[in-house]
Amino acid sequence: MSKITLVTGGARSGKSALAESLTKRSGDHFFYIATAEALDVEMRNRIEVHQARRGAEWTTVPAPIDLINALDATDKAPRLVDCVTIWLSNILLSGRDWRGASKDLTSALMQQRNPIVFVTNEVGSGIVPENALAREFRDAAGWLNQEIAALADEVFLSVSGCPVRIKPNDAVL
Amino acid sequence: MSKITLVTGGARSGKSALAESLTKRSGDHFFYIATAEALDVEMRNRIEVHQARRGAEWTTVPAPIDLINALDATDKAPRLVDCVTIWLSNILLSGRDWRGASKDLTSALMQQRNPIVFVTNEVGSGIVPENALAREFRDAAGWLNQEIAALADEVFLSVSGCPVRIKPNDAVL
Amino acid sequence: MSKITLVTGGARSGKSALAESLTKRSGDHFFYIATAEALDVEMRNRIEVHQARRGAEWTTVPAPIDLINALDATDKAPRLVDCVTIWLSNILLSGRDWRGASKDLTSALMQQRNPIVFVTNEVGSGIVPENALAREFRDAAGWLNQEIAALADEVFLSVSGCPVRIKPNDAVL
Repeated sequence: MSKITLVTGGARSGKSALAESLTKRSGDHFFYIATAEALDVEMRNRIEVHQARRGAEWTTVPAPIDLINALDATDKAPRLVDCVTIWLSNILLSGRDWRGASKDLTSALMQQRNPIVFVTNEVGSGIVPENALAREFRDAAGWLNQEIAALADEVFLSVSGCPVRIKPNDAVL
Repeated sequence: MSKITLVTGGARSGKSALAESLTKRSGDHFFYIATAEALDVEMRNRIEVHQARRGAEWTTVPAPIDLINALDATDKAPRLVDCVTIWLSNILLSGRDWRGASKDLTSALMQQRNPIVFVTNEVGSGIVPENALAREFRDAAGWLNQEIAALADEVFLSVSGCPVRIKPNDAVL
Repeated sequence: MSKITLVTGGARSGKSALAESLTKRSGDHFFYIATAEALDVEMRNRIEVHQARRGAEWTTVPAPIDLINALDATDKAPRLVDCVTIWLSNILLSGRDWRGASKDLTSALMQQRNPIVFVTNEVGSGIVPENALAREFRDAAGWLNQEIAALADEVFLSVSGCPVRIKPNDAVL
């Protein structure tokens, strides 16, 4: 099984920059698996800021829904998946079953050989949302984050651009 | 005074599973002090998922409001209180004085002899809520979390299922 | 350049009390640079609780907008800026350019000689806000927090009143 790294944190906490440097620890060519679609100006601007930071050694592969195919097609170099929560949001908003899709994803990870760095978001540390779909998304993201973290060799929490290693760590129970 | 442990984290971050394993470090029978009431289907499903994980060595004691009585009645084995923020929400929504109730709770902790593990939620790391009651709840939860953490021997932050020990830790000032 | 410390965390997580003790590590007189304006009763109460905790060795300097002037005027003793996110909110709500104002602030920090402790808020770990201004504020706060953290000698995350040192830390990449 490939080496798996999970980078989590709040919005604009430096997760993507951290994940890029973690991906580049080995190899000289990298795949950027992008789950976001440029559906509006705000999102397009956000994507362009991220692309401008990456160089020519990166190949971008769009995967708003079919993340497993994108992983299979890129299993020849280190991959960065940015990000889990946008993929999950695409799954929910397209009416697909997020539990099934999440289980399929974590099963597929067992078959991968090249390193994968996942970026995800902390979405559950605010007030309980009034909107039922938002609560379901929050549950789905929390559940999938835990599943990926359980499979991961290392997990980092990014806070104000500072990486905090939370797995492995010294909190022995 | 009993050994007190606080487990905090966002929604679906693995707090309850962590708190259960922390409770089971000593003893062979445990009390699960449940503050949530199964008022609707969503909440009932959530409670059943949690109950299914625990085994026959657990006795459930409901305590949506009268947490001190539940602690007094169970002071013969390790207890898990799940969770502080739902109890506080019940206090607020029933029109009671949360400051008084919180002070009574922390005073009562001094009289306990058997270990207590509290689960609580991080609710203050999103955008400031527009709703005044949500802001008051956020303040109340932050305040009570600090009070329990100050009395606690150990505090853990759960992130994506990874336990991070935050008390005691090495951040000497 | 002065020693810079950043204290971040959710609402009511003990950030201000931690920042006050960090400010008082050196010197015997301190400036409290207050960015909040007492525009309503809720905010006035919150400010009074904070003031009551501080003693006569503190001089309060209001700086809802002109934070650089306040830093220049107080560069003769340790300063506590409480807080970055309220200042940024004042900048946005007054129609000013937050990117320009933030860059001016971080440039100005290079010219300071006496220690500065900044308090800021984690605002990006909840569900994505529906309100576009709230999303912009969240981006602005995340961006400025990262910039200050990059200049800082030390960064602390406060969780339930427990200080967690996140810079420098041992998460070597």
